Amino acid sequence: MVSQPIPDLGRATAEMLARIRQRKPLLHHITNFVVMNDTANVTLHVGALPVMAHAREEVAEMVAAAGALVLNPGTLTPEWVEAMLIAGRRANELGIPVVLDPVGAGATTLRTQANQRLLRELKIAVLRGNSGEVGALAGMGGVVKGVESIVDVADPVKVAMAFAQRQGIVVAITGKQDVISDGERVVLVDNGDPWLKTITGTGCMSTTMIAAFCAVEQDHLLAASGGLIAFGLAAELAASQAKGPASFKTALFDAIYNLTAEQIIAGAKARLTW
Amino acid sequence: MVSQPIPDLGRATAEMLARIRQRKPLLHHITNFVVMNDTANVTLHVGALPVMAHAREEVAEMVAAAGALVLNPGTLTPEWVEAMLIAGRRANELGIPVVLDPVGAGATTLRTQANQRLLRELKIAVLRGNSGEVGALAGMGGVVKGVESIVDVADPVKVAMAFAQRQGIVVAITGKQDVISDGERVVLVDNGDPWLKTITGTGCMSTTMIAAFCAVEQDHLLAASGGLIAFGLAAELAASQAKGPASFKTALFDAIYNLTAEQIIAGAKARLTW
Amino acid sequence: MVSQPIPDLGRATAEMLARIRQRKPLLHHITNFVVMNDTANVTLHVGALPVMAHAREEVAEMVAAAGALVLNPGTLTPEWVEAMLIAGRRANELGIPVVLDPVGAGATTLRTQANQRLLRELKIAVLRGNSGEVGALAGMGGVVKGVESIVDVADPVKVAMAFAQRQGIVVAITGKQDVISDGERVVLVDNGDPWLKTITGTGCMSTTMIAAFCAVEQDHLLAASGGLIAFGLAAELAASQAKGPASFKTALFDAIYNLTAEQIIAGAKARLTW
Repeated sequence: MVSQPIPDLGRATAEMLARIRQRKPLLHHITNFVVMNDTANVTLHVGALPVMAHAREEVAEMVAAAGALVLNPGTLTPEWVEAMLIAGRRANELGIPVVLDPVGAGATTLRTQANQRLLRELKIAVLRGNSGEVGALAGMGGVVKGVESIVDVADPVKVAMAFAQRQGIVVAITGKQDVISDGERVVLVDNGDPWLKTITGTGCMSTTMIAAFCAVEQDHLLAASGGLIAFGLAAELAASQAKGPASFKTALFDAIYNLTAEQIIAGAKARLTW
Repeated sequence: MVSQPIPDLGRATAEMLARIRQRKPLLHHITNFVVMNDTANVTLHVGALPVMAHAREEVAEMVAAAGALVLNPGTLTPEWVEAMLIAGRRANELGIPVVLDPVGAGATTLRTQANQRLLRELKIAVLRGNSGEVGALAGMGGVVKGVESIVDVADPVKVAMAFAQRQGIVVAITGKQDVISDGERVVLVDNGDPWLKTITGTGCMSTTMIAAFCAVEQDHLLAASGGLIAFGLAAELAASQAKGPASFKTALFDAIYNLTAEQIIAGAKARLTW
Repeated sequence: MVSQPIPDLGRATAEMLARIRQRKPLLHHITNFVVMNDTANVTLHVGALPVMAHAREEVAEMVAAAGALVLNPGTLTPEWVEAMLIAGRRANELGIPVVLDPVGAGATTLRTQANQRLLRELKIAVLRGNSGEVGALAGMGGVVKGVESIVDVADPVKVAMAFAQRQGIVVAITGKQDVISDGERVVLVDNGDPWLKTITGTGCMSTTMIAAFCAVEQDHLLAASGGLIAFGLAAELAASQAKGPASFKTALFDAIYNLTAEQIIAGAKARLTW
């Protein structure tokens, strides 16, 4: 394994963030009810434009204006999955990256099968889930209770690499350490803070960050890594102001908005190996 | 009427809270769109795990992993009520406590009838509503406008006791003073703060608190009382930091997370009479 | 053009706000998932009572108790538009003002046509949108991407006046300067702050403010202007406490709640011309 030094990923992240803020790509979300407000705000704070639209009658038209499509079946029904497929197919035709967040895969048959179907019928750019969710989809271990990974996969690097290779996608397993792989290369991100576990939707927020970076960067391994570095770093910067989970959340959102290139280059804790 | 001294309920609440934080029960919510994010956060802050799932295709499977089920038809449609019945029946089979929050019962025929049906067809552990909502369901007075009790029932202790006895459930009427009864015993809780009236969803949040306590305590009168004591006390602790409703809400969520056994034992204002 | 001095609109706004706080009108929202929690909170903070209800089975009954109806198809499906028509027709029969927020009109055919239908089949009191949305509906220019106006109409005063006259409604185009017209009179409001652009749903929140004012004031030009003055002024008062978008939002909600007649009379930056 060869290991690249840290500064490159930090600098690349800062450059991608600058492109997001300059181009303001539209991120079309078909996402769950719990996090719609939060992920719309994160989209704005990172410098992109959000739209939430799920009607089967309009998603193909809406996604055509987007820089990336987020599919997050966290409060799914069959109709919503159908809308995701319609939007996803159109995104695929137009070369717009699709980011999938398989919330609760492994917890119920409906969730596991819906996410498998999205993976099978669409060309996904990045799959971002917790250890249990990705393990369940890869058939490589992990246990999900509700939307939480209560038993992590034994070797996330191996799972991410193998599943990425098999699917021809980028796989990001987030947790204490984030593991991102395109099947050949692996990035390990150590940015983040334990406060992230105390509020709902931080996984979904990190998926939105990844989508913003995918909208401006064709190397989706780099984009996914950049989104997770920026998000994790914002969490670190916010932690000092946390008196509890809600004040942490306020500080986190402020920190995403205020993130500077200098902070990213100095604070990125990531390494690329292959 | 015999009246138990305060310390017992405070100590019992502290013990139940410790069990929640240790066991981290899953709280399956089928709830309204307005409060999904807030109640998922309250679930995490009190120490439990949230999942929001309403698809008729998965609710029976999801609830099987839960420590308690919250049914809150605050933005109901007939399909959602059907999902509540499916989940509720499975919960009943498995002995998982079901907590019902009859948002807006009394305001429209649909709401009143849907809640009556849930009460009739399911074994409910705890019904938690405001004075008007419970009065409407009990047929004992109270007027609801939207989701607000604009005319309270004349004698909440009498209504709670009578309705609890008739239904064989625990009834919690929340307001300036919370009244909880299982038909024989009555607990009066005086914790709380006027700021709670200035933000949306505090009733729903208190229902989530009750569900967390029901997940670890089979005496549902005690569980409901504990949830309301802890929530009301967190509100009191938050009030000093409120510069308005939104800063109060941030402080409230932080306070739920930070609540200690010492604070509860010292601050519980509750008495049990029977 | 004759121009009225500022103090009159400030004083009128303060008087309307006092009426809202005294009468506590119910604002029935059929609105999008992204902002339900935020607009329910804004409703409470300004002094009114919120209810979110969209079931076709109950909306006619619910709206009958309301002081105003908000229609906001921001995450529309055909079923929701149908519910909006049912509620809107009943509101029209009862003389309850209907406020329409055409989120994303112009972005997709579904959105444009749904809003055109609402405008055609209902008597709308106030239409409030951004420049692109109103331009798209008026057929007078403006480009919408997602829910954002990315190309504004060339002359908002002309568009607002012409469209208001053609439709027989009050049109409010919000942006850096808000333009409100009933087809004859025009009010220009310069209250507001750039932080408003950094969080999601501020357009929807301003629509809720307008609805609260319409519930207590039959001159809907005055009501819409008052809602926008109060909202913009709250944003100005909040800006000094913003360390980023999320702390701005907390301060904004606190400021709406704390707004005094003195602040409004001193701070209103609005003029009426005709």
